Amino acid sequence: MPKNAFYAQSGGVTAVINASACGLIETARQHPDKIGKVYAGRNGIIGALTEDLIDTSQESDADIAALRHTPSGAFGSCRFKLKGLEESRAEYERLIEVFKAHDIGYFFYNGGGDSQDTSHKVSQIGEKMGYPMICVGVPKTVDNDLPITDNCPGFGSVAKYVAVSIREASFDVASMAKTSTKIFVMEVMGRHAGWIAAAGGLAAEKEGDAPHIILFPEIVFDKDKFLAKVDASVKKNGYCSIVVSEGVKNKNGQFLAEAGTRDAFGHAQLGGVAPVVANMIKEELGHKYHWAVADYLQRSARHIASKTDVEQAYALGKAAVELALEGKNAVMPTIVRTSNNPYKWEVGSANLADVANVEKKMPFYFISEDGFGITAKCREYLQPLILGEDYPPYQNGLPQYVVLKNSAVPKKLSTTYNLK
Amino acid sequence: MPKNAFYAQSGGVTAVINASACGLIETARQHPDKIGKVYAGRNGIIGALTEDLIDTSQESDADIAALRHTPSGAFGSCRFKLKGLEESRAEYERLIEVFKAHDIGYFFYNGGGDSQDTSHKVSQIGEKMGYPMICVGVPKTVDNDLPITDNCPGFGSVAKYVAVSIREASFDVASMAKTSTKIFVMEVMGRHAGWIAAAGGLAAEKEGDAPHIILFPEIVFDKDKFLAKVDASVKKNGYCSIVVSEGVKNKNGQFLAEAGTRDAFGHAQLGGVAPVVANMIKEELGHKYHWAVADYLQRSARHIASKTDVEQAYALGKAAVELALEGKNAVMPTIVRTSNNPYKWEVGSANLADVANVEKKMPFYFISEDGFGITAKCREYLQPLILGEDYPPYQNGLPQYVVLKNSAVPKKLSTTYNLK
Repeated sequence: MPKNAFYAQSGGVTAVINASACGLIETARQHPDKIGKVYAGRNGIIGALTEDLIDTSQESDADIAALRHTPSGAFGSCRFKLKGLEESRAEYERLIEVFKAHDIGYFFYNGGGDSQDTSHKVSQIGEKMGYPMICVGVPKTVDNDLPITDNCPGFGSVAKYVAVSIREASFDVASMAKTSTKIFVMEVMGRHAGWIAAAGGLAAEKEGDAPHIILFPEIVFDKDKFLAKVDASVKKNGYCSIVVSEGVKNKNGQFLAEAGTRDAFGHAQLGGVAPVVANMIKEELGHKYHWAVADYLQRSARHIASKTDVEQAYALGKAAVELALEGKNAVMPTIVRTSNNPYKWEVGSANLADVANVEKKMPFYFISEDGFGITAKCREYLQPLILGEDYPPYQNGLPQYVVLKNSAVPKKLSTTYNLK
Repeated sequence: MPKNAFYAQSGGVTAVINASACGLIETARQHPDKIGKVYAGRNGIIGALTEDLIDTSQESDADIAALRHTPSGAFGSCRFKLKGLEESRAEYERLIEVFKAHDIGYFFYNGGGDSQDTSHKVSQIGEKMGYPMICVGVPKTVDNDLPITDNCPGFGSVAKYVAVSIREASFDVASMAKTSTKIFVMEVMGRHAGWIAAAGGLAAEKEGDAPHIILFPEIVFDKDKFLAKVDASVKKNGYCSIVVSEGVKNKNGQFLAEAGTRDAFGHAQLGGVAPVVANMIKEELGHKYHWAVADYLQRSARHIASKTDVEQAYALGKAAVELALEGKNAVMPTIVRTSNNPYKWEVGSANLADVANVEKKMPFYFISEDGFGITAKCREYLQPLILGEDYPPYQNGLPQYVVLKNSAVPKKLSTTYNLK
């Protein structure tokens, strides 16, 4: 009897993490001789700890195929990081108890940095706790901060959303600037790194194009320099379009979103960094502004996903199964860029030991000298990641995203587990 | 020699106002025997007052065709309302001076309520000031508040954007709800009416679907009732997804966005209504939240425009020229709905006298009894307006929107005009 597989989604979800699930489950189904059922953890690793498993074999081929065009985590995700083997042996013993009960021999964990750390810890239970297990990580994160892989599935689609959105909104502002709005500020994700903010820069393909300013978390905010740049843009272009990362900090290391104003009760300003920046311009330069905070819209926008991103997400899910079938433990499939123009990529693999707890920073040479834009090198890197469209099917004017049955696997254990 | 035409865009722009410009200019080009050149006002009516006209005959057929898929106002818009003929005779005399100098016999004005008031005033200069002119309004507004016409071009695309976005973000929250975000709040436009907020309700096609709550400007905000509804949704669905109109007011008639907190300097909260609502939930119910403010993104999102909306915008631009060629003055083409299922529509026309200064309210029977959702009647009205997709062309992963040459028509007058 072939061993069953466990698959779970972890951390913040993306527009394409389900495409990885699709690639993984479809590929597993092609190898019934080697992989039994794929059990998904309901809400990530929590599903394993609490023996709350989803039997994906109950889902039709059509529904599994529809995962490719469905955003978010179809099985539920979680924010939960396993402690080290030594620190928290009970957690690992519980995992082994559940895996044994359900004859699970493959562990696939689809997530970002923290999640690959979890994958790495689980990959050691064969050697350290005598439970043989093939453990393969599947990369995912809009933050694009995993090492070794050229980029992370999920990021390309956010990048496309941000570049498309700032282009469109900037066309709007350009129309209104003569007698009304002259400033547009769009806040994007990226608390620790400017990858997503940088993607906004793709919209500016030639001199004068919006966005005119990008505020990166990597660059300490300098109000005077910023306002001078805004003023110059309004004088030259008639308006100024700005992408700001939620992670921008002032020289004291405080997030700009929080360092500004306080409300009547002393609470920090509730409204993100975009209104802080917009209001600063209004007060100093007097221009009318509009601002937007994209928040979850940017990472769930499957309707404008990058085709490249969808294909890579699917390919890595598929590759994870293939690596497992080759008997590789403690690895993660990666994207390897082999050519920029034309863009070419292939699937490689990395050791989880080299991935866990390593955060890929955006190179400083990706930020232009004045600190407000991206360089040609950055554009060369980012451009291919947003290539192509991959539209979901529509009905009644709305994208048709699948909601799976998510039937529970009958519990086999009489024990329960209390999450800490 | 045929008379020339003047065309201008007015007020807040939309994803499809250029589709109307496209329909209008392409149709005018088919009648060179009756219409000479189409001159566009640079920044709306201001372009007429300052003799700043754009010669659209300098634009290629391909570039004019590309207007159909380009959001925003390609000739610039303005927020500028003409006063009455009696109050401000000088403005009208100046318009006639410019129209005479450039042999303009047709006046097309593409805008919302205020703009159609301007169209109506201009339509009277033939009778009242002896300058013969055919004046036709072209409807446009995301607010959907023009009377007589079934709906307004621009609204359907915002409606689609809002419905798609809240569906996608809600899938995201549903994935995260077990251990993280349980509340998502999306703020949409509509200071005076809930048309746009109502469109979010289209995403909820069956029991339990998001959004679970819509906050309308038509309904006085009741904090206790609202929090009870949020609590019930979290208990039932595991999360709660909310669409809030920027125009929601409390029982004192204050905008919720402004009535809440003040910063250390006594300034009103900068951050819109979404963070106010989200924070209220956090304080009272303790749930983790995320919020988004779509702002200009929603009205410029040509990448997800409604095909129905694009077709109607084009058809009304075309119809405006056809009405003018029939010699109709002081009219505006309209959308007439002839069937809901299957959805059918045709072009009609209204008198500007009946359109000017009349605001179409959302019927109260479009809002569900508890005040937090839409009725079947509302869905029946809104559903067809978001039907179909009409994707723009892409290059380098980005939508290719046209920027016209916008060459100025040489000035013929030695006089200048100072805007008041």
